Amino acid sequence: MLPFTLTILGSSSATPTSERNPTAQLLNHGEKLFLIDCGEGTQVSLRRMHIHFQRIKYIFISHLHGDHFFGLIGLISSMHLLGRTKPLYIFGPPQLKEILDLQLNASQTTLLYPLEFRATQAEKPEVIFEDGLISVSSFPMLHRIPTTGFLFQEKPGERKIRKEVIDLLKIPVHLIPKLKAGDDFFAPDGTVHSNEIFTSSPPLPRSYAFCSDTAYFEEIIPVIRGANLLYHETTFMNDRIVNATEKFHSTTGQAATIAAKAGVKKLLIGHYSARYDDLQPLLNEASAIFSKTELAVDGMVFEI
Amino acid sequence: MLPFTLTILGSSSATPTSERNPTAQLLNHGEKLFLIDCGEGTQVSLRRMHIHFQRIKYIFISHLHGDHFFGLIGLISSMHLLGRTKPLYIFGPPQLKEILDLQLNASQTTLLYPLEFRATQAEKPEVIFEDGLISVSSFPMLHRIPTTGFLFQEKPGERKIRKEVIDLLKIPVHLIPKLKAGDDFFAPDGTVHSNEIFTSSPPLPRSYAFCSDTAYFEEIIPVIRGANLLYHETTFMNDRIVNATEKFHSTTGQAATIAAKAGVKKLLIGHYSARYDDLQPLLNEASAIFSKTELAVDGMVFEI
Repeated sequence: MLPFTLTILGSSSATPTSERNPTAQLLNHGEKLFLIDCGEGTQVSLRRMHIHFQRIKYIFISHLHGDHFFGLIGLISSMHLLGRTKPLYIFGPPQLKEILDLQLNASQTTLLYPLEFRATQAEKPEVIFEDGLISVSSFPMLHRIPTTGFLFQEKPGERKIRKEVIDLLKIPVHLIPKLKAGDDFFAPDGTVHSNEIFTSSPPLPRSYAFCSDTAYFEEIIPVIRGANLLYHETTFMNDRIVNATEKFHSTTGQAATIAAKAGVKKLLIGHYSARYDDLQPLLNEASAIFSKTELAVDGMVFEI
Repeated sequence: MLPFTLTILGSSSATPTSERNPTAQLLNHGEKLFLIDCGEGTQVSLRRMHIHFQRIKYIFISHLHGDHFFGLIGLISSMHLLGRTKPLYIFGPPQLKEILDLQLNASQTTLLYPLEFRATQAEKPEVIFEDGLISVSSFPMLHRIPTTGFLFQEKPGERKIRKEVIDLLKIPVHLIPKLKAGDDFFAPDGTVHSNEIFTSSPPLPRSYAFCSDTAYFEEIIPVIRGANLLYHETTFMNDRIVNATEKFHSTTGQAATIAAKAGVKKLLIGHYSARYDDLQPLLNEASAIFSKTELAVDGMVFEI
């Protein structure tokens, strides 16, 4: 199975603290690196974790609140100053392009590498990226300004050939691609050999859903249903539900409720208000509703 | 004497390293806080040094290369989110205002406090701020884009009254302001008492000159002459003088030469290229030309 891991680069909401950076996550799928949001200080976090940031090829920005993108222009600049030539692909709200261009123009910088920008929209779910192994969809969340979540889904793999059975049945090599795709084998003597005899199932495709920032919003449930890992924001605990609702954020209990209703395999909570030094009460509140909950903490790595 | 100190928040050039932030300095004059440049991560550096950043009232930005201002929008946002109501005054190149406004608009943020912006120009020296105790001037430097240095100069204080002599000579109280300004005293018997008899000199006014980024540029010498402390950039050592010149930066030897020619009391070098892990060779190169040189290191505090 390909490696599929999530590294938390920042777990704070709104303002950074001495301990927690604003939102940024690095998703590694088979050594292809996707950066999700890029709060101030992300480039330094990457350095301190010894992640070579020139390897990042795709960056996804959920929305234009500063704690989710103020580190992007600095990362783009450093990639340039350190000699990047490979393209960088950025997916985010339309105005992001204007913000980046204005700052590059102000410093009279012409990037040494192509920066390809693709605008997202927060109206309806949409596939915004795919290659042979993975697809990425954006989908609307419920926030004060247009905001999208991102769903990373592995594509179903081919069935795996059982070489010893192929040899035994003397199946011609040119048929193997069809067998991998699920075809049965019609032997010259007229026998039909069912596909399961000479292949085994590929690993189940895995998925990661990123949901930050959003108020409690059940419309995301069909999109994220059954995800192996759901990251859902939890800016406040339930006792501040009025505060959360006013600011279009979610409480810990609400995040866990979404996880339970969507039948995900694991919930990761983060985007904590700076008021919470001790995160254990948040974990307790979520776990009471959805037991498979973990806390996002800067520097932690999660297997998907 | 009023406290007059400089705290180094960042000493790196271009790209931050794991150890060094990009340029930012905090100048404290009598508990009035001036921030000079604001590279990415400045707000977190301030937090980690337990400096309450809402106390900063004036921010000076030298130019629009990212390593000198990418942290400004984050600091402005955090001041807002943490409830600031007092005005913030920003001095910088004209386009800076547009960059800040675009990002505030994108996040639909209306600041809770007045943000007063005053555009600088890089054509000629100019006083851009003064109050009863200090004045701040900008002056052109020689860089790839318009860039200014900043000179912070204390105003001459009043002469100090020697109370015991005032009492002895029975000088009327209403004359004291004139005596502080330097007047002599004409006694009723016709005797003239020279001012020095009943006053003593105020402390000499102190000054701090900030020069980053610039190529070797002798035109700054008359402006910074005799400064108590000169911060001068030194991106490279002398063996990379071609590199420095091409990029409109200074070598360590050039910084020291400017310090010597300007007759400053102390030189502080910084804005080091990320290539220099060990800074001792830079100190050696500068000290050979100007012995009173010190290294700017993140977190260090210098008395002016």
